[in-house]
Amino acid sequence: MSAAGELVSEPAAIPKYDIVRAALVELRVTDIEASERFYSELLGMVVAGRTKEALYLRGWEERSHHSLILRHSAAPGASRLGFRVRAEADLDLLAEEFDARDLPVKWVEGRDPGMGRALRAWDPFGYPLEFFYEMEQVETQMQRFDLHRGAPLLRIDHLNLHTPHIEEGFRFWRGLGFRCSEYISTDGEEEQLTAAWLLRKPNVHDVALTLGRGPRLHHTAFWVGEPAGVLRACDQLAAAGAAHAIERGPGRHGVSNAFFVYLRDPDGHRIELYACDYYTGDPDLKPLRWSASDTRCRTFWGTRAPDSWYEESTSILGPDGEVVSTEEPGLDERDQRSEVMA
Amino acid sequence: MSAAGELVSEPAAIPKYDIVRAALVELRVTDIEASERFYSELLGMVVAGRTKEALYLRGWEERSHHSLILRHSAAPGASRLGFRVRAEADLDLLAEEFDARDLPVKWVEGRDPGMGRALRAWDPFGYPLEFFYEMEQVETQMQRFDLHRGAPLLRIDHLNLHTPHIEEGFRFWRGLGFRCSEYISTDGEEEQLTAAWLLRKPNVHDVALTLGRGPRLHHTAFWVGEPAGVLRACDQLAAAGAAHAIERGPGRHGVSNAFFVYLRDPDGHRIELYACDYYTGDPDLKPLRWSASDTRCRTFWGTRAPDSWYEESTSILGPDGEVVSTEEPGLDERDQRSEVMA
Amino acid sequence: MSAAGELVSEPAAIPKYDIVRAALVELRVTDIEASERFYSELLGMVVAGRTKEALYLRGWEERSHHSLILRHSAAPGASRLGFRVRAEADLDLLAEEFDARDLPVKWVEGRDPGMGRALRAWDPFGYPLEFFYEMEQVETQMQRFDLHRGAPLLRIDHLNLHTPHIEEGFRFWRGLGFRCSEYISTDGEEEQLTAAWLLRKPNVHDVALTLGRGPRLHHTAFWVGEPAGVLRACDQLAAAGAAHAIERGPGRHGVSNAFFVYLRDPDGHRIELYACDYYTGDPDLKPLRWSASDTRCRTFWGTRAPDSWYEESTSILGPDGEVVSTEEPGLDERDQRSEVMA
Amino acid sequence: MSAAGELVSEPAAIPKYDIVRAALVELRVTDIEASERFYSELLGMVVAGRTKEALYLRGWEERSHHSLILRHSAAPGASRLGFRVRAEADLDLLAEEFDARDLPVKWVEGRDPGMGRALRAWDPFGYPLEFFYEMEQVETQMQRFDLHRGAPLLRIDHLNLHTPHIEEGFRFWRGLGFRCSEYISTDGEEEQLTAAWLLRKPNVHDVALTLGRGPRLHHTAFWVGEPAGVLRACDQLAAAGAAHAIERGPGRHGVSNAFFVYLRDPDGHRIELYACDYYTGDPDLKPLRWSASDTRCRTFWGTRAPDSWYEESTSILGPDGEVVSTEEPGLDERDQRSEVMA
Repeated sequence: MSAAGELVSEPAAIPKYDIVRAALVELRVTDIEASERFYSELLGMVVAGRTKEALYLRGWEERSHHSLILRHSAAPGASRLGFRVRAEADLDLLAEEFDARDLPVKWVEGRDPGMGRALRAWDPFGYPLEFFYEMEQVETQMQRFDLHRGAPLLRIDHLNLHTPHIEEGFRFWRGLGFRCSEYISTDGEEEQLTAAWLLRKPNVHDVALTLGRGPRLHHTAFWVGEPAGVLRACDQLAAAGAAHAIERGPGRHGVSNAFFVYLRDPDGHRIELYACDYYTGDPDLKPLRWSASDTRCRTFWGTRAPDSWYEESTSILGPDGEVVSTEEPGLDERDQRSEVMA
Repeated sequence: MSAAGELVSEPAAIPKYDIVRAALVELRVTDIEASERFYSELLGMVVAGRTKEALYLRGWEERSHHSLILRHSAAPGASRLGFRVRAEADLDLLAEEFDARDLPVKWVEGRDPGMGRALRAWDPFGYPLEFFYEMEQVETQMQRFDLHRGAPLLRIDHLNLHTPHIEEGFRFWRGLGFRCSEYISTDGEEEQLTAAWLLRKPNVHDVALTLGRGPRLHHTAFWVGEPAGVLRACDQLAAAGAAHAIERGPGRHGVSNAFFVYLRDPDGHRIELYACDYYTGDPDLKPLRWSASDTRCRTFWGTRAPDSWYEESTSILGPDGEVVSTEEPGLDERDQRSEVMA
Repeated sequence: MSAAGELVSEPAAIPKYDIVRAALVELRVTDIEASERFYSELLGMVVAGRTKEALYLRGWEERSHHSLILRHSAAPGASRLGFRVRAEADLDLLAEEFDARDLPVKWVEGRDPGMGRALRAWDPFGYPLEFFYEMEQVETQMQRFDLHRGAPLLRIDHLNLHTPHIEEGFRFWRGLGFRCSEYISTDGEEEQLTAAWLLRKPNVHDVALTLGRGPRLHHTAFWVGEPAGVLRACDQLAAAGAAHAIERGPGRHGVSNAFFVYLRDPDGHRIELYACDYYTGDPDLKPLRWSASDTRCRTFWGTRAPDSWYEESTSILGPDGEVVSTEEPGLDERDQRSEVMA
Repeated sequence: MSAAGELVSEPAAIPKYDIVRAALVELRVTDIEASERFYSELLGMVVAGRTKEALYLRGWEERSHHSLILRHSAAPGASRLGFRVRAEADLDLLAEEFDARDLPVKWVEGRDPGMGRALRAWDPFGYPLEFFYEMEQVETQMQRFDLHRGAPLLRIDHLNLHTPHIEEGFRFWRGLGFRCSEYISTDGEEEQLTAAWLLRKPNVHDVALTLGRGPRLHHTAFWVGEPAGVLRACDQLAAAGAAHAIERGPGRHGVSNAFFVYLRDPDGHRIELYACDYYTGDPDLKPLRWSASDTRCRTFWGTRAPDSWYEESTSILGPDGEVVSTEEPGLDERDQRSEVMA
C-alpha cells in the first residue's frame, strides 16, 4: 500500500473530548444588506437575529439558534469555523490539548446572541476554529413548508478547506477524532492525496480538505432535502436576476454521491447546496479511493469543474482580523486528469 | 363490438367552427376573501384583476388574462364553462348550430375585464357553456420562479362533469368536434360507459364525463409541471393549516397517466392539480378502454377514491342563477369494482 | 408536566456498550420464491447470498453483507431484530446486562453467511433481539445507477414494534441508551403515550413503539433517497400487477417529516419505503410531542391510515420458533383522533 | 419594428395540407451494435423492429411503430427528417406544392416495416424531408413502469437544424404552416435572427433553426416526463461508463423553459432529453424574443454551452447518399453574448 493509502487507512484517534459536528461559520462581508438579500431573500434562510454589525441565520430544520454569521467588515474573509461538542467539559479538554500542542487558544463569551462560552483555537495551518457547547435551542421550522423559499436550505452540513498541506492537515483532523470516508489521490508510485473527506457525524463529512492555495475556506455547505430543491434554487436565482451566482452545477458528485450546486455570494464566498449523500456511522468504515485521473470523481457525469472552482476561495482572517498569508501547493489536481473520450 | 365500444370508436364530427380548448370556469363563492386566500395565497395563482363582485385569476404560464373567475353569490355553484375558439367568426357558427338544435343562446359583452364578445349557450343537459375568442393577452410569468408559490398552477387543463346521461353527453360533445382518448365501461354483454375523456387540444382531455348525479361540475383541473409540484402543494397546504382541503391523492391515475391530487376549496368546489399526461394529436388516435372492475383505472396504485369524490360535486346554475335540478344515474361505477387481493 | 411528558424527557442511559444502529431483520416466509420476486425483482434489492433455507438481501448503498434475511417456514413471523454494536466486546457487556436482568440470552455463530458471533437475547416483552459486531464488508453499489430498479432501497433504516406495553417498552429501550426524537400522546390530564420514536444513529429512529396488540413487528423500513423514488416504486409495483401490495400512502409523515409508502409483502410483512427525515445527533435533542388528536401526526396531509395499518402486524417467533402470544392494549390511538373539517 | 421582428411576427401560412408534427428521423450509423447499446440498453428506448440493415426504435409512450431509424452506413449522417400529416391526401397536396416550387420529390413505399406510402422531398437548403400518413399503430408502453429504463424517453419531440440561411429557412417553414413560438436575435439596428422555434403541434416546437454551418442536423429531441428523469439518465449513463456521452447540461433552457440534457451517440449524433415546455395552441400566440446577448436564453442559469454544441452537427445526406456540402453563416451567436458578472 502506498503512503497515501496507508495514511487514510490508519484509524482515527479516540480523544477524550467529543466533537459532534461542524455547526457554524462566520463570514466577513462588505455589504451586509446585499448579503442579507442573497441568503435570506434569494436562498430563503431563516433570519435568527441581528446586531448592529452582524446578521445571524439558520436553516429551516435547525433547532440551534444560528449556523451562519455574516459580520460587516472592510474586506471579505472567514473568521470562524465552528464545531459543536457533546458537553461543556469537552471545551476544557480541547483547551488542554491545544495548549499541549502550543497552539493559541482564547475563551470568548457573551459575544453572540444565543451562545455561551466558546473556545477559539488556531490550528497549525492558521484556520480559526471555534468549539462551543451551549447554544439556544429554538423551534424547528422544517415543516413550515408554507414559508419555505428557494431550495430550501435545511441545515449546515460541512466546511471545505483549501490547503497546500493536505497530508499534515489530514493528520491534524484525524487527531481530533475525525474519520475518513473518501479521498482522491494521484496514480502511480508516488501517490499523493489531493482531497480528503473527514467526518464526526455519520454522513460523508464535516470537514473536507482540498489541495490548493491556503489556508483558505473553499466553501460552506448546506443540506437540501432532494435534487428537486437544488434545481428550484437555480431557477429562482436566475429568475431573480442572480444567475451569475451559480458557479458550478447542478450535478452529481462522484465523491459522496451528493447532488450539488455551488453558488458565490455577493462577496464571492462559495456556498454549496448539498443533497443525497450516505450513512458512514459503522465502526469498520473503509475510506473509498478515487483516482485524480478519474473524470467522474468531481462530477460523476464527467463535467469539468470551472477553473474558478479550483482557484478561488475565501481568505482566512487571523487573530487580529488580518488576512492570513497563503502558500501554493506543489501539485494541481487538474494536471492529473486524463480526459477519456470513447 | 359492444354498444359502448362502438359509440366511443365512431369518429368525431368535423364542424365548421374550431373550438381550441377548455379555457375558463366561473365559480360562485360565498366568501370571496376565503376563496382568494385559498387560490391566491395557498395555491399561489396569479391575481389578474378584481371587480366589486368578482376575482379573476390565472396560472403562471398563461398569457390569457384569466382562466378562473370567482364571483360572490349567496350559494355556491358553477355558472360558466368556458371554451376558446380559433376565430371570432366561429362564435357566429356556433350560435347558428345551437339555434338549429333549439338550444338557448345569449350574447354577452363588456361584462368581464379583458374579454370581448362571448356566446353563452346551454347544452341539452343544462350545463352553462360559454364560447369566446377575444381575451386580452398578458405577459407569461412562467419563468418568474422567484415569485411562484405552491405547486405552482401553470394553466387550466380541463373540466370534468358529473352526468347521469353519459352516452347522450358523449354524443353531444363529439358533435362539437371533441375526440375520445380514454373511457371506462362495465364488463359483460351490456357494456355501459361510466366515464369518458374528450379532447380538442392534443392531450388527454378538455372535458371529461363522469357517471353520477348531474348536471354538476365534478372538478376543474390545473396543469402542474411535475409530480414534485403536486407534493409541494400538499406540504404547503398542510403547513398552512389547510390539510382538510386535500380530498384524494396524491396519486397516479390509470386513465390519463396523470399524477394528481384533488382539493376542495372553501365552498367545496373540487380542484385537481394535474401533471404528466400524454400527446393525443395523431389522426388515428384510438380510445383506450378501462374496465370499471379494474382497480387501477381510477388510481393506478389501486387506492380507492373516497365516497365524497364519487358523490359530491358543484351545483350548476341556470340562466337566472337558479340551481339546476339534478337526476341520479341508473348505475354506480363503484358497484362494478372487484377488489382483488393477491 | 404530565407523566408521559416526564417519561420521554428523562435522559437516555449511557451504557458501557455502544449499540450503533438497527441493522438486520429476519422474516419467516412461506414461499421463498414469491418473496424473492417481491424483494429482488419488484423492489430491486440486492441478493447478497442464499442457502437452502434462506435468502440474504441488502440495499444498494449498504456495505454490510446483508440487512434482510428471508427464511423459509411453515408460517410467517419475525424471528430476529438485529442491531450492530461498535466493538466485539460490546457483545459481552450486553450479555452481562441481559443476564443481570434475568433475561434469556444465547450465543450463535456460523449460522449465517458473512456473520461472526452474535448474541441472541429476548427482551421482557418477547421480542427476539440479536446483537452482532462482525459482518463481512462488501463493495457498495450505491452508484451503480445502471443496475438500480424500483425505488431503489438504499439501506435498512428502522424497525417499528406493535406493543401494548408502550411505557415499559420505552423505559427498556432508553435503558439500552436509545434517545427519543418524537412521540404521540393523548390529550388531557391522563396523558398516555401511543407511540414513540427512539434512536441510536442520529436520524429520527432505529426503533419505534406503536401502541397496539403485541409483541408484534409492525414494519421494517428501508431508506430511499428522495420522494421521486417512492413514487417510482409505486408505479413499478402497479405496472407489474402488484398494486395490491401498496397499503398506505405515498404521503408525508407529520412525525419524522419522512416521505413514505407502506407495502405488504406476499406473507403480509409490512415494509416502509422512507425518505427525508432529519438530523438528531445534537446532545440537547428535545423530544417533539404530537397530540393523538392531531390529524397531521400520522399523515401530515390529514389522510387517515387504513384500519389494517393499525391492526395487522407480523407475529413474533419465540426461542423455539413458536408464535409468541399477544395482548391487546387498553387504548386505541384512533379513538383519540378528532376529525376537523373546515 | 426591425426586420427580424417583422419577419417572425407575420402570420404563418394556412396551407391546404395539414402537417401534424415532427415524427421520425433516420440516422446513419457506422456500428449498429454500438448504437443499439446506446439507444436501447443505456437510454432504454423500445426496439420496434429490425432488418438486416436497420434498427427501428420508439419511445415508451408512442403508439406509432417507430420514430427513430438507425441505418448502417460507412459514414454517419442524417438521411430523413420525417413529418406526419393528417390524411393520406395531404401527401399529394404536398407533392404538388414541392413540384410547383421546382423542388425534387420522390414517392417511396414498402421500404420500412410498419409504414405505407411516403413522400420524400428536398427543401431549398438540402434537408431531406419525408412526409407520411400511414404508420402501424401499436400498444403504448407508457405505463409499463416496470420495464422502463433510463430517463425514460417517452416520444420524439422535435428536430433542430443548423443552417446559415436562417431567415430564408424561417420563411420556408412558415410557408408550410409552421408558427413561431420564440426566437433569438441580435441587438441593435441591424437585428438578425440567430435562432427560431417553429411548431405545428402545440408545444414550443417541431423544428428549430439554429444559425451555424449547414445544412446539418443539430439534434433530435425526445420528451421525458420530468426533470428527475433527465437526472436519472445522466446517473445511469455515467454508472455504465458512458459519462463522455453527456455534452451539455442538465439545465433549464431560457428559451422554451425546458429542462434538458444533450447527449452524443457513438457516431456523435446529438440527442436532447427534453421536459417541461409549455402550451402554444392559442390562435394569438406571439413569438417571444430573447436577445443574443442575454446569457439566460441558452441556459436560464447562465451557463455557457460548450463550443462543441455550437460547432458540431450531423452531416446531411443527399438523394444519392452523398454528404451535402455546407456553408458557414456570416455571424456567430456567441460573439453577441455579453457576459455580465455582478
